[in-house]
Amino acid sequence: MAEQSFQLYDTTLRDGTQQEGMVLTVEDKLAVARRLDGLGVGFIEGGWPGAVPKDTEFFRRARTELVLENAVLAAFGATRRPGVQAAVDPQVRALLEAETPVVTLVAKSHTGHVRNALRTTLAENLAMISSTVRHLVHAGRRVFVDAEHYFDGYQLNREYALAVVRAAAEAGAETVVLCDTNGGSLPDEVGAVVAETYAMTGVRLGIHCHNDTGCAVANTMAAVDAGAVHAQGTAHGYGERCGNADLFTVAANLVLKRGREVVPLEKLRELAAVGHAVAELTEVPGTVAAPYIGRAAFTHKAGLHASALRVDPGLYQHTTPELVGNMMRTLVSDMGGRSSIELKARELGYEVEAGSEEVARAATRVKELENAGYSFESADASFELLLREELGGEGPAPYPFEVESWSVGVSGTHVGEVRTEALVRLKVQGRTVTASGQGNGPVNALDTALHTALDPCFPVLAQLELVDYRVRVLSGETGSGAAARVLISYRAGDRRWGTVGVDGNTTAASWQALLDAVHYVLLDGPPGRAEEAPRLTAVTAG
Amino acid sequence: MAEQSFQLYDTTLRDGTQQEGMVLTVEDKLAVARRLDGLGVGFIEGGWPGAVPKDTEFFRRARTELVLENAVLAAFGATRRPGVQAAVDPQVRALLEAETPVVTLVAKSHTGHVRNALRTTLAENLAMISSTVRHLVHAGRRVFVDAEHYFDGYQLNREYALAVVRAAAEAGAETVVLCDTNGGSLPDEVGAVVAETYAMTGVRLGIHCHNDTGCAVANTMAAVDAGAVHAQGTAHGYGERCGNADLFTVAANLVLKRGREVVPLEKLRELAAVGHAVAELTEVPGTVAAPYIGRAAFTHKAGLHASALRVDPGLYQHTTPELVGNMMRTLVSDMGGRSSIELKARELGYEVEAGSEEVARAATRVKELENAGYSFESADASFELLLREELGGEGPAPYPFEVESWSVGVSGTHVGEVRTEALVRLKVQGRTVTASGQGNGPVNALDTALHTALDPCFPVLAQLELVDYRVRVLSGETGSGAAARVLISYRAGDRRWGTVGVDGNTTAASWQALLDAVHYVLLDGPPGRAEEAPRLTAVTAG
Repeated sequence: MAEQSFQLYDTTLRDGTQQEGMVLTVEDKLAVARRLDGLGVGFIEGGWPGAVPKDTEFFRRARTELVLENAVLAAFGATRRPGVQAAVDPQVRALLEAETPVVTLVAKSHTGHVRNALRTTLAENLAMISSTVRHLVHAGRRVFVDAEHYFDGYQLNREYALAVVRAAAEAGAETVVLCDTNGGSLPDEVGAVVAETYAMTGVRLGIHCHNDTGCAVANTMAAVDAGAVHAQGTAHGYGERCGNADLFTVAANLVLKRGREVVPLEKLRELAAVGHAVAELTEVPGTVAAPYIGRAAFTHKAGLHASALRVDPGLYQHTTPELVGNMMRTLVSDMGGRSSIELKARELGYEVEAGSEEVARAATRVKELENAGYSFESADASFELLLREELGGEGPAPYPFEVESWSVGVSGTHVGEVRTEALVRLKVQGRTVTASGQGNGPVNALDTALHTALDPCFPVLAQLELVDYRVRVLSGETGSGAAARVLISYRAGDRRWGTVGVDGNTTAASWQALLDAVHYVLLDGPPGRAEEAPRLTAVTAG
Repeated sequence: MAEQSFQLYDTTLRDGTQQEGMVLTVEDKLAVARRLDGLGVGFIEGGWPGAVPKDTEFFRRARTELVLENAVLAAFGATRRPGVQAAVDPQVRALLEAETPVVTLVAKSHTGHVRNALRTTLAENLAMISSTVRHLVHAGRRVFVDAEHYFDGYQLNREYALAVVRAAAEAGAETVVLCDTNGGSLPDEVGAVVAETYAMTGVRLGIHCHNDTGCAVANTMAAVDAGAVHAQGTAHGYGERCGNADLFTVAANLVLKRGREVVPLEKLRELAAVGHAVAELTEVPGTVAAPYIGRAAFTHKAGLHASALRVDPGLYQHTTPELVGNMMRTLVSDMGGRSSIELKARELGYEVEAGSEEVARAATRVKELENAGYSFESADASFELLLREELGGEGPAPYPFEVESWSVGVSGTHVGEVRTEALVRLKVQGRTVTASGQGNGPVNALDTALHTALDPCFPVLAQLELVDYRVRVLSGETGSGAAARVLISYRAGDRRWGTVGVDGNTTAASWQALLDAVHYVLLDGPPGRAEEAPRLTAVTAG
């Protein structure tokens, strides 16, 4: 169980999207929320309904498509406008229409911002906070208030900043979150202001930090040490300018360095995997040097330390990498990965022996493929195909068809007409089948042609729907001359999975991923789950 | 003048090179040292002579080729081996042969490491420290001692850790640097241990931190607040695992947040430039989100902020970007509005009137395009093309060529051979030009064909290099039936920019982005910057 009273609050989907270059679709946002929920985060802020159309849509779809196990969904918005009743402010109405259990309101707590950005009086700003909080609480919402520019405001006019905290709490806000909006504070200042604010108001406090002095995580820790019981942050520290406090680092620090179980220990083991999955979804990679979850976080250059590392890895590691789902790497050894492959295999229903030769073989294979540019974190179907080959010890399972050739062409004219056509020639059950397909691009056209060729023989494939695909140019990243990695996401009923292809040619990489999906569907389930064969019968039943 | 007593100590060339993937030549190291010297850093640690042949060579060449204006050069090495006289230890001799004014010795201060890594007694380790320091001091060197694993060692055996500090100082070490070698500490612990160590020993102390809890900078600040007068770090926080304390951030924090002029204010204005130059030399880029010097460090996206920014930039910035040689930037996004477009236009050198009709028109156009799936944040070239059209009020500027048709085909065989070929037919200066291009995928092949057709007529295009591209499927996200957004990144000389294309067909979207890049290069610069036309002349000249 996570620590009951402490609130770990994720704002990746709102403040994190201020990150330069991050553009999330509603589908992406739903997928990120699911991964964060799986980590055991307490609250997920989904966006700003009413202000950002995509966010309004997110909350609408979340009602039916987002089943959260751990987290509570929060909608973000502002206090009512000056001189308007909260009940009739369209932005406040949009917050209620988002139908989330929690609403987080941003409120000004810096007199300069009240006067120059809000252009209202200090008194009216307090009234805006009170009446908006009351209105939302009356409507049955739990309300958090983000006191914007709190630390700068506190230096400028401490009494007013405290008045904002009191106004929010007296109106019914459950927690008042002190925000270092410009990110210029240092930990000692943050700790002192949090402690003083708590001493003066007795209000339940939270913390929201930015990284402009390189101290967002430390500032968050200092605030918690000083009594804050709610910490906001974003995946990978995504955010405007220098980013927000990295929620992954904060969570690991609190659990492992402070013994505060803000996420359950068994969920913390998912930290690295969730981090990588979120980075795939946002297409904004975390750094390899990221604390706890970065690929380099527990990497040692062998040399000097090698013998000591063998004696006692604890001498050169500040924590145990497995606790956060990461692993020790030494740049020459080949130790890593076996245990995670074992775990994953069991998760998929395969019976594997700890330390068996099959697992070692699969680990080696995964390592080789990752070196060549593959990534299996969101390509679970391709991973399962690989695992079956290695566990069976029989090499690749045969496709129930052979590929003779494939091609796809795209052409455009001066008036902007574009035409895409693919042609596939397969040998299915001894017969040569040729099929063509049109589409909105090469991948789509090839997918259509594949279905046209195969669905009559394998009707189960008709359920398979290509949802999304991503192309990643790998040049310079690997030594193998690989040019592109393509990740394709599929849906069938309410199950989803992904495949991966890597090739020197981008379209050939896509073709590989397309074939993996078909292969995956047409294979039987794992040996221990015979009732699930063929896969899609189980898929739709589950 | 930099604060006299405080030592800002750079270890980019030694500890920073532990960064995975960093391989510096002696030439690179000399060039990095020159840039760091230009920043006003007090000490530059050049490497480990005797242990690393390249570093021995570095110090040899530094004697004649490295003329430092501000910094003092330091050679790094270890205390003598157990049971050997310092004078005859070859590693200690190599330190003297490096002929640097300063030698920094690493010494064990953690009993577990003394026993298990050094495999000697606690007493002999103290003797190794004393005799090595004495030997070097006797030879005329200033000696610093890095007390390795100090914070972990202090928790385990405080008396021994303190004995190491005392032994080093008594033997003549000028400063003893407390190292959080495994990087697992938090600021309050670091501050407390530094304060206690100083109280117990009275020795001049330094600090060396790693970032494994995301707190390397904060730990350094805490140590300085607790009395440390020597701070070590690396450019961009380069280093093993999660990296070292980022010396650039530490320097800016100390000067701007603590008023300690550890580098002179006028040198601090070089911070961003030095950071970029060092990243070019190491070929390991800093992050765009790096505090103070990152490209995004003073970038604003939200429309909410953009209007207030016009009134008072200080409201949304924790410091003045010009103090560290950076500047405020505005991103164009669906969260911004007219004000962010105005700011962006000015940044690009266009003269626009606040609230003018042109700006309103451009804002509407951006909004429409963003609704259709465009994203301009990393497509600055496409944005500038749009802006020119709207500011000129003349509609799209004509391409200096016409597209008659284009096509691209990819085909594969059963043995895995793949072939991609593109064909473009353009009308250039009245003539029809046909060109074909092969590539590792449709985008690459079309790019090659375009260059083949156009470069003979427009030689400036030969500088244009396609660096990366990203395809994003948009299905279901927009009402316009748009299927894909393609973002392409280009480089020419040391300038980089991006273009965007959106179309129902993924390949057509790429084609659009490819054409935008060509169009951008062939157009003149902004009206107010006539000297920059044609663009790439300026690019290479600048």
